[in-house]
Amino acid sequence: MAMIALGFFALLAAPAAADLFPDCVHGPLSNNTVCNTNASVADRAKALVAALTNEEKFNLTGNTSPGVPRLGLYSYQWWQEALHGVASSPGVNFSTSGDFSHATSFPQPILMSAAFDDALINAVATVVSTEARAFNNVNRSGLDFWTPNINPYKDPRWGRGQETPGEDTFHLKSYVAALIDGLQGGLNPPIKKVIATCKHFVAYDLEDWITTDRYNFDAIVSTQDLAEYYMQPFQTCARDARVGSIMCSYNAMNGVPTCADPYILQTVLREHWNWTDDGQYVTSDCDAIQNIYAPHYYEPTREQAVADALTAGTDLNCGTYYQTHLPAAFSEGLFNQTVIDQTITRLYSALIKLGYFDPPSATPYRSLNWSDVSTPAAEALALKAAEEGIVLLKNDGLLPLSFPTDKNTTVAIIGGWANATTTMQGNYFGIAPYLHSPLYALQQLPNINAVYGGGFGVPTTDGWDELLGAAGEADLIIIADGLTTSDESESNDRYTIGWQPAAIDIINQLSGMGKPTVFLQMGDQLDNTPLLNNPNISALIWGGYPGMAGGDALINILTGKAAPAGRLPVTQYPADYVNQVNMTDMELRPNATSGNPGRTYKWYNNAVLPFGYGLHYTNFSVAASAQGQAQTQSGPSSNSSQGQGTSYNISSLVSSCDRSQYAYLDLCPFESFNVNVTNTGSKLASDFVALGFISGSYGPQPYPIKQLVAYQRLFNISAGASATATLNLTLGSLARHDENGNAVLYPGDYGLLIDVPTQAVLNFTLTGSQAVLDEWPQPPTKG
Amino acid sequence: MAMIALGFFALLAAPAAADLFPDCVHGPLSNNTVCNTNASVADRAKALVAALTNEEKFNLTGNTSPGVPRLGLYSYQWWQEALHGVASSPGVNFSTSGDFSHATSFPQPILMSAAFDDALINAVATVVSTEARAFNNVNRSGLDFWTPNINPYKDPRWGRGQETPGEDTFHLKSYVAALIDGLQGGLNPPIKKVIATCKHFVAYDLEDWITTDRYNFDAIVSTQDLAEYYMQPFQTCARDARVGSIMCSYNAMNGVPTCADPYILQTVLREHWNWTDDGQYVTSDCDAIQNIYAPHYYEPTREQAVADALTAGTDLNCGTYYQTHLPAAFSEGLFNQTVIDQTITRLYSALIKLGYFDPPSATPYRSLNWSDVSTPAAEALALKAAEEGIVLLKNDGLLPLSFPTDKNTTVAIIGGWANATTTMQGNYFGIAPYLHSPLYALQQLPNINAVYGGGFGVPTTDGWDELLGAAGEADLIIIADGLTTSDESESNDRYTIGWQPAAIDIINQLSGMGKPTVFLQMGDQLDNTPLLNNPNISALIWGGYPGMAGGDALINILTGKAAPAGRLPVTQYPADYVNQVNMTDMELRPNATSGNPGRTYKWYNNAVLPFGYGLHYTNFSVAASAQGQAQTQSGPSSNSSQGQGTSYNISSLVSSCDRSQYAYLDLCPFESFNVNVTNTGSKLASDFVALGFISGSYGPQPYPIKQLVAYQRLFNISAGASATATLNLTLGSLARHDENGNAVLYPGDYGLLIDVPTQAVLNFTLTGSQAVLDEWPQPPTKG
Repeated sequence: MAMIALGFFALLAAPAAADLFPDCVHGPLSNNTVCNTNASVADRAKALVAALTNEEKFNLTGNTSPGVPRLGLYSYQWWQEALHGVASSPGVNFSTSGDFSHATSFPQPILMSAAFDDALINAVATVVSTEARAFNNVNRSGLDFWTPNINPYKDPRWGRGQETPGEDTFHLKSYVAALIDGLQGGLNPPIKKVIATCKHFVAYDLEDWITTDRYNFDAIVSTQDLAEYYMQPFQTCARDARVGSIMCSYNAMNGVPTCADPYILQTVLREHWNWTDDGQYVTSDCDAIQNIYAPHYYEPTREQAVADALTAGTDLNCGTYYQTHLPAAFSEGLFNQTVIDQTITRLYSALIKLGYFDPPSATPYRSLNWSDVSTPAAEALALKAAEEGIVLLKNDGLLPLSFPTDKNTTVAIIGGWANATTTMQGNYFGIAPYLHSPLYALQQLPNINAVYGGGFGVPTTDGWDELLGAAGEADLIIIADGLTTSDESESNDRYTIGWQPAAIDIINQLSGMGKPTVFLQMGDQLDNTPLLNNPNISALIWGGYPGMAGGDALINILTGKAAPAGRLPVTQYPADYVNQVNMTDMELRPNATSGNPGRTYKWYNNAVLPFGYGLHYTNFSVAASAQGQAQTQSGPSSNSSQGQGTSYNISSLVSSCDRSQYAYLDLCPFESFNVNVTNTGSKLASDFVALGFISGSYGPQPYPIKQLVAYQRLFNISAGASATATLNLTLGSLARHDENGNAVLYPGDYGLLIDVPTQAVLNFTLTGSQAVLDEWPQPPTKG
Repeated sequence: MAMIALGFFALLAAPAAADLFPDCVHGPLSNNTVCNTNASVADRAKALVAALTNEEKFNLTGNTSPGVPRLGLYSYQWWQEALHGVASSPGVNFSTSGDFSHATSFPQPILMSAAFDDALINAVATVVSTEARAFNNVNRSGLDFWTPNINPYKDPRWGRGQETPGEDTFHLKSYVAALIDGLQGGLNPPIKKVIATCKHFVAYDLEDWITTDRYNFDAIVSTQDLAEYYMQPFQTCARDARVGSIMCSYNAMNGVPTCADPYILQTVLREHWNWTDDGQYVTSDCDAIQNIYAPHYYEPTREQAVADALTAGTDLNCGTYYQTHLPAAFSEGLFNQTVIDQTITRLYSALIKLGYFDPPSATPYRSLNWSDVSTPAAEALALKAAEEGIVLLKNDGLLPLSFPTDKNTTVAIIGGWANATTTMQGNYFGIAPYLHSPLYALQQLPNINAVYGGGFGVPTTDGWDELLGAAGEADLIIIADGLTTSDESESNDRYTIGWQPAAIDIINQLSGMGKPTVFLQMGDQLDNTPLLNNPNISALIWGGYPGMAGGDALINILTGKAAPAGRLPVTQYPADYVNQVNMTDMELRPNATSGNPGRTYKWYNNAVLPFGYGLHYTNFSVAASAQGQAQTQSGPSSNSSQGQGTSYNISSLVSSCDRSQYAYLDLCPFESFNVNVTNTGSKLASDFVALGFISGSYGPQPYPIKQLVAYQRLFNISAGASATATLNLTLGSLARHDENGNAVLYPGDYGLLIDVPTQAVLNFTLTGSQAVLDEWPQPPTKG
């Protein structure tokens, strides 16, 4: 298909300005209602579809759309990427130099999520959509972006966990709502800024594990886990953030390939979540339609496979299977005219919602240009995003570093990440204006003699003598190492989550030389026990994939120019965890039969470092209170219950919800809690993330250890000063999911746990009868 | 270490001609006995070692040896590779153009072994060693080559199986004996041509499997399997072919890292096999010494790890751990002076055996030069080696192809291997003078319009429309696809051994277009059931990694210019086999408890295609007889027993062995059998490989299905003509190994099975009492 598309592009390439949007003034469609901006989206789309032959419609179902030249509908590439900045992808075309040769490259989501700062995410997404529109205005990008990846990161082996905001559903939901708003230009605006795509719907979660891969995986998921965990981020994305597009995934779930599953795409997505706004469409992951035929072998013929997908509600095929096999499937009567018309209606309604058939004056976006790309503010935001996300895991007091100003300090910077550049971008990245490595940033400091030592060479000992030599000459050793996309990436899960034994050998030799040693652990989580237990390593920082300003951010944290306040967005598991649970095991709860010890902080209690963990350069105390309720005592060891607290009646809570304001009961407010935070240190200011978890013995067993229900990042709290976070809990904060996936409020004793480790607890009680907040649609009975 | 070595190289680089060999005429060593060619090797080495300080000795224990400048001992790189031709490696330095810019690149061993032609292997090895000497004479190579890889290829997932001659011990032994003879310049010659290195000693066999990798693997091997299978190729290499070097492996065996195991390196290798010729030394695999410390964690300190290895008998460390940690280990008294002196004696005796301290006139090898590299004869041999190895797996009569001469035929050549170049070389390759892809070779045929279709793009459908378009225009479709070193290589085992489902989808679409279709399955074995069962695929050929003339060889086979007569050197397993046995399971025999269905044709009976399988363009009948015994009937279905046959008395067999000629009882002749082969076809000449297997119910249970004991390739048998192969069986051919690893002759009824599938059977009986041919040294009792 690539070659055919190229042909069309070549054909239409000459009038470069003209082939971006259809000519609604003089073009063949000028008298078609699609060009009438006063008509409804539905009427406009209907008029366009009426003008198309079936052959043309089938040709429009692939991501590399040839358009319809006779109607002046230009070719269109539906596939753009922008995971953390406008990214190289089939529809994005960076110039080789000058204007549009780069775009702002933010940290990977796994690091940005560690900031626990939704406003930051919204600001980042706003920059991304602005830059995307600027690229689009010069025909260097389409307007449909296949981002974000919101599959919850439940297994540390997953190669694409770095693309996500982590393991927790509440965190994912908050993050994605802020992100979609920034990308699309608000909540379901009249004209979308760009279309975002929540992927991969649903129960994706692995790349390759022994003989199982993402293409052949059949995820066996209970209705309880599905509703409670795997669907939650998509519920927010589709139901609440009104995303423009959803991508169905490669895998099957409970025997049905998701792109061919009407339960997932129709019953849950479109009916239960009312995801039926104009132009909302489902795209397949790339060649997921082919995968229905093989390796899922869900249908015996290719024609039945494409008919299943189209009928189930997959509107766009990334790939060529639709275009190749839909015509025969239609001839064989495997789907009817209504189905293909609905598909094309959805796709072109999406373009209408982007202002594709509108004059430039219809939106503020058509005037964005190169001056709006990679602005100083955007570049500062990329630095801030990295600084906010970085997590301090260990510090014996060496940090923040202070260097003598009257003489030079020799710093050896060693490891595979020491001079990382594109490595800092992880995957799905674009061309950045610059890539400041840790070495580069170190070299910018005054009075520093930076000695670069290179990587560990593991599993060989190549270069170890040189590393030891460099360390021997230094006053301070910075080791920057960890995972890269060679270790974890698309199609490449990890089998191990511990450090390579040879790496620990050379790390121990380096840190054992009697020099102060700081460790920057980069990439995703590893079992850092050997580093945490090594008394010669004074400080340990987790830096993820920090993007184009990553080195600046890391060095700013080391010197205290920025103070670390990020929190782990995932559990750091012990290395042996991979031997305790199969990658293919989708169950969240511990299971004595399978040996699954439980997944995520919600069900697993033996972390090396827990979800939400993160130190500061100062100390904080917290005191929490329900607004208008008695205040609890604060203190680092006050993990015990503080008495019974307040009672709430369930039926009163439900009936007092203003349903004109809240369409869904789980979104109704329950109570707001104040968390008063005091910087008890004497010198340094710092941000602080207030985290609130709910815990209690109520609802179906087993009970989760706790569940995040609210967070707020407080900024720049000076030494001795206080600030107050407000944690707004909803009825959904208190809900548990029963075996049928229903979200239910249960009577019982609840605790609101503040911070990690818990620094304060507020107790309250729910009384009365249980109430269903969301009645989950049941999957079809097995045939 | 690389940088330090570079320093020395730089220091000594100026007199390029002088730094190749020590100057025994005017140099510092000219009066040292090492330069006295009349002295014994032992005395020469002793004199050199006496001139060294301990510090110098420790510095000489790594592969990148700095030499001893004060003595005029130049730096020396011990690490050269030549798996199937002089290969790029630390010690081999191809020039960028002109002389010494390339070397002959033969097929990978897995394909050459399929020829079942030991004379071919000897000829190939002779070319390789000649070219190696020519490179050495201009200081572009050292003389120690870390080849061959003779770990038996027992699991189809192993990423390095391509480097080996296959799964069968007898085949491996015959192959390696022919190879070592060709590389070293005969059986333990006065001056070795080069030093070969049999690797990886022992029970290596995997790269990475879930959390197990070659560095941390502890192979649990029974003494029976060890003696019968894993040790057998090394026994031939060390005991019989008198190889100059053995490489101990990364893995541990039964709890002990092999490089630190005196049972393996001393008891078996040096004592039981008498591997104590001058200059025979053990090198570690690269950084296997470091691996003793971690990840094997065999010793708590680095010093004890290096002392263990040196004391066990590992003389050379590929890596830097010896040089870095031996001095401290020596200071701590962890080994004594004798041990390090013995090590250096062995290493420099090896160089003495290469004529390193001798005048050029001492050997014929010092005059070899560029005119001896990649000669027309060598290039013809590379083509012949590929042609001889290629195996015909299916043919409905379409092959050999004949094309009309009065008009052009359009041939679509499609698939990932269609235009393969360096891919044909597999791994451990050098720079070839040319790389003739299948497409290139096809284009050389007259009256052919070759249309190149590219790869399958799997797992995506990218380019499928173009492939179908190309196929639609063709008169004939050739599909060339399979595995590459992206799928299987060092550090990269396969998890699956079946075709990708998407590949079968496009293959079925291509072959379903009504055009005659030929399939070239390249790389290692895949479960070819979908191709064998597809009636639209007329012919299937296995081509392995065929080297620089690979395309020529494949096209010659297709057109009948060369007739296929290769045989599978491994079992082709069904795809589900990987679910039946763990990669880490070293057991050969079926095991009901573990579910292991048995490994290799010897113990596994459900192959897709069996070891030894291979079709021809004509048909052959065989008739077998013991020399001087009654002849059996021939016929393709005569798989049944032919009566009791002759009897042999075991004690007579043993006592009649001429022990002055045969140092080991297993090598004593038993009986020779004639296999009379008749080409029963009417048109085409062909080679034929006569294979002889022993089968019977004798010795310890379970009984193997059969065991290869002899083979001979017969050449160019014309239609209607006959030829006779002689299968020389030894007492070892009849031996079984008991639980203690002893090789024993057992009384019982034996069958000699000819060909695959069996075409003839000769029965005979052994009478009398069992006799031990080889009493295996027992491993130390667990502490």
